[in-house]
Amino acid sequence: MKWNVEVQVYVVATKLNKLTQRRKNMAVKKAEAKWNGDLKSGQGTVKLGSGTYEGNYTFASRFENGDGTNPEELIGAAHAGCYSMAFSNELAKAGFSPESVETHAEVTLGMVDGAPTITTIKLSAKGIVPDIDEAKFQEIAEAAKNGCPVSKALDAVDIELDATLQN
Amino acid sequence: MKWNVEVQVYVVATKLNKLTQRRKNMAVKKAEAKWNGDLKSGQGTVKLGSGTYEGNYTFASRFENGDGTNPEELIGAAHAGCYSMAFSNELAKAGFSPESVETHAEVTLGMVDGAPTITTIKLSAKGIVPDIDEAKFQEIAEAAKNGCPVSKALDAVDIELDATLQN
Repeated sequence: MKWNVEVQVYVVATKLNKLTQRRKNMAVKKAEAKWNGDLKSGQGTVKLGSGTYEGNYTFASRFENGDGTNPEELIGAAHAGCYSMAFSNELAKAGFSPESVETHAEVTLGMVDGAPTITTIKLSAKGIVPDIDEAKFQEIAEAAKNGCPVSKALDAVDIELDATLQN
Repeated sequence: MKWNVEVQVYVVATKLNKLTQRRKNMAVKKAEAKWNGDLKSGQGTVKLGSGTYEGNYTFASRFENGDGTNPEELIGAAHAGCYSMAFSNELAKAGFSPESVETHAEVTLGMVDGAPTITTIKLSAKGIVPDIDEAKFQEIAEAAKNGCPVSKALDAVDIELDATLQN
């Protein structure tokens, strides 16, 4: 009898633990990349876990203006995507009905103390949001910049925001 | 005469400043995203500045398992791409001739204090590197994790590395 109760307690505890876990970890997303050779003469591929994209990258596509993708534009896409979604959500939570938010990201890779470093991300956002005034729009734009999960992950980078109400 | 010297000093100073600037900013990369509507019923698109990819994302593709891309897999691709390149470069700088480095990234989005947060990025790297021993391979793998510009930008995230020498 005692053993039976202990088993039941264990089963309930395990279920509770899994439920908590599910609430804690909302999503796990995947991607991969392969680099062949050394830095200058080599080349690589990146692939998104969703299967929607596979592309090439090289030294030239990253540090110069060669054809192909690069880690910095992928960071920019992640940040612009996160910010547009977060800003729209914050606007809706504040009682507005945003038509659209479009964000352009510029990611600067510079040299800091002799090491390549992502120094700045500049976000330029344009929103079409009926019935909002400029001050409220700017206030929510700034809050979304700070609250967007990708902004928080990129806390080591200087993030600049320029938001424009386009109504 | 004094005025002329001052003009020349100014011109030289300006040129030097631009040269320094050029060395400081290695590359500026772009991307953009647009979100239409609110969080749950809306949908968005992301686009890489290189023009190599444009894809859709939704609440379901980000927080659930819906079709489409999401900011977290883009972060994962940036990190895997940066790490594979950085690790290959560090191996070459240490005198080895890496054939390839393949890195898989898993990006976990969880709830921390009630807010969606990128909590962990797990990098699993496999290298084919002739004439290296396990200890040296692991040492350089770890150094590349810390030195890769995307790792430094994502300093707020817990970054785990599992490196395997596949020779």
